[in-house]
Amino acid sequence: MATYKAYAAPSAGATLELIDVPVPELAPDHVEIDVIVCGICHSDLSLIDGEWGPFSQYPQVSGHEVVGKVVKCGSAVTDLKEGMRVGVGWQRQSCMSCNFCLVDEGECCVGACGCVPTCAGGGKGGFAEKLFVQSKYAIPVPETVDPEFIGPLMCGGITAYKPLTTYAKTGDTVGIVGLGGIGAMALAFAKEMGLNTIVFSTSARKEAMAKEMGAGKYVISTDEEQMKAVESSCDMILYTPNVLPDINPFIGALKMKGKMAFIGAITTPVPIGMFGPPIMKDLLFAGSHIGGPKKIKEMVDFVAEKKIKVPVEVYDFKELDACLAKMRSGTQNGRMVMKW
Amino acid sequence: MATYKAYAAPSAGATLELIDVPVPELAPDHVEIDVIVCGICHSDLSLIDGEWGPFSQYPQVSGHEVVGKVVKCGSAVTDLKEGMRVGVGWQRQSCMSCNFCLVDEGECCVGACGCVPTCAGGGKGGFAEKLFVQSKYAIPVPETVDPEFIGPLMCGGITAYKPLTTYAKTGDTVGIVGLGGIGAMALAFAKEMGLNTIVFSTSARKEAMAKEMGAGKYVISTDEEQMKAVESSCDMILYTPNVLPDINPFIGALKMKGKMAFIGAITTPVPIGMFGPPIMKDLLFAGSHIGGPKKIKEMVDFVAEKKIKVPVEVYDFKELDACLAKMRSGTQNGRMVMKW
Repeated sequence: MATYKAYAAPSAGATLELIDVPVPELAPDHVEIDVIVCGICHSDLSLIDGEWGPFSQYPQVSGHEVVGKVVKCGSAVTDLKEGMRVGVGWQRQSCMSCNFCLVDEGECCVGACGCVPTCAGGGKGGFAEKLFVQSKYAIPVPETVDPEFIGPLMCGGITAYKPLTTYAKTGDTVGIVGLGGIGAMALAFAKEMGLNTIVFSTSARKEAMAKEMGAGKYVISTDEEQMKAVESSCDMILYTPNVLPDINPFIGALKMKGKMAFIGAITTPVPIGMFGPPIMKDLLFAGSHIGGPKKIKEMVDFVAEKKIKVPVEVYDFKELDACLAKMRSGTQNGRMVMKW
Repeated sequence: MATYKAYAAPSAGATLELIDVPVPELAPDHVEIDVIVCGICHSDLSLIDGEWGPFSQYPQVSGHEVVGKVVKCGSAVTDLKEGMRVGVGWQRQSCMSCNFCLVDEGECCVGACGCVPTCAGGGKGGFAEKLFVQSKYAIPVPETVDPEFIGPLMCGGITAYKPLTTYAKTGDTVGIVGLGGIGAMALAFAKEMGLNTIVFSTSARKEAMAKEMGAGKYVISTDEEQMKAVESSCDMILYTPNVLPDINPFIGALKMKGKMAFIGAITTPVPIGMFGPPIMKDLLFAGSHIGGPKKIKEMVDFVAEKKIKVPVEVYDFKELDACLAKMRSGTQNGRMVMKW
């Protein structure tokens, strides 16, 4: 039986091993992809470390920020051809027949498949030589952009891109809370979209980076005076952190009819005092996750046209264990991308 | 000096007195209206009782759900004529030049006037023979509908109508939480909009009324089994109550990409567990207040065409004190409307 190599965690949190995975029978609507690069997202670590319970199935092969080459198409595939370069993100497949799949918003699919990570539930992810997904979720990407700048877009990038394009419009001022991996991508996108930007951060540590990236303003969110100075300034705020300080100064930073989108894994409820600015100013609060194939394609084209280079560190796949350790300790700069 | 009669509270919570108010000089863009009816909204009581601090100025003349007749137009008024029947709600005027006023969303006006009740801050409201407002905020209403059915629309009605028309669309299922005055108007609107409806209430007390009004389902929101049965059922939920039980079963009742609008004076923050269904299902939470002149006109036309009769109790203005007492004790049925 034909096999391919993959980096797998034999048990929760264990050191990765290079294992042989049997090449599966190719489903009619699936494609076989040779992986070129794969970014590391924090949820890869969560799956390796068993933090999400039954979503991990050992040997766990994580990885869902892939750029690769289509090497074989299933018998029913009409949208891709062998040799095409594609990107694959969080989602491996969807039902293709619900009201969301029909309008290319498969990330909201309400069919049986739902939207679980490509690499969860026994699915083998992109920390491997090969990846097998429904053709719809292998998005054609341009070969003119180095693949390491595309991998991180497929999950982290789209998480920032979708709410920006959904809730902000030309001329708007957008507040970006947090300048981690996703916040930095959001800032790069917002700048190229021609939006005015305000970066909110808890410290001055990233001010130089923000200014260099073109941020309009940099506000220390724990500084009452600075927050007061940007009251009613933002048409939209993208809240990226996983932690929740007092939300009220951020609500205060929204203009009339302002919109705040949450994308981070905040584990405590966000207390929104509706009878106050939210009602008086017709404010809107949105949860937002990844995007569907059409939106991902739009983002990739935008990034290629604007020549946006998201901050990445590229490593050889052999260094994957060390990179995961780096992520566990939170010492990486920019998105880490593994390359064969 | 010419005067007109008005029911005024001489001090916080005091019995009303019929006083003589000087007829003000008519501003160029204002109209003079002879009041026919005026509904009672809970905020009238809040102003009379001094619950909103400086917004009350005694003698306090409340009332902001008016239907009346234009008897005089200011020199610059071009949109109204003497003799026209008009409705006036929460808002008396706006700046007319901000980005919101320019698109007829004056309720979001960011000019100096802001959006305070017609009858606050020394402004004399509709518990009177006359009312003076900017012509834009005197909305033409049809004489074919009895004025008592229009008065309550001007504040309570528009609060329900705007989010329904903003966040629901043809074919949607809308959950209406609470069947008080505004909830009942929402249900009447939703039915005539052709929406599927689910009424959520804490008790079975209003089930007959809901069914008679055409509610599709009636769900006791404190009953876990009943809430489980409507999981992922609603495209939109209109949350009308002033009290907040566990919000999570309501969030659970939203479909993928569902929307929840809050319009009630909930005094505690609404704890929204963003990292969960809100993010995974791309949910949206909105605060919503009154609507602008264009939206009010649209609602009035809709009500007239569909012959919607909101539940009201009509009283002579002489009974105003007794009606306020009734509202303080919460024993009224339907909206109370005072008539000269």
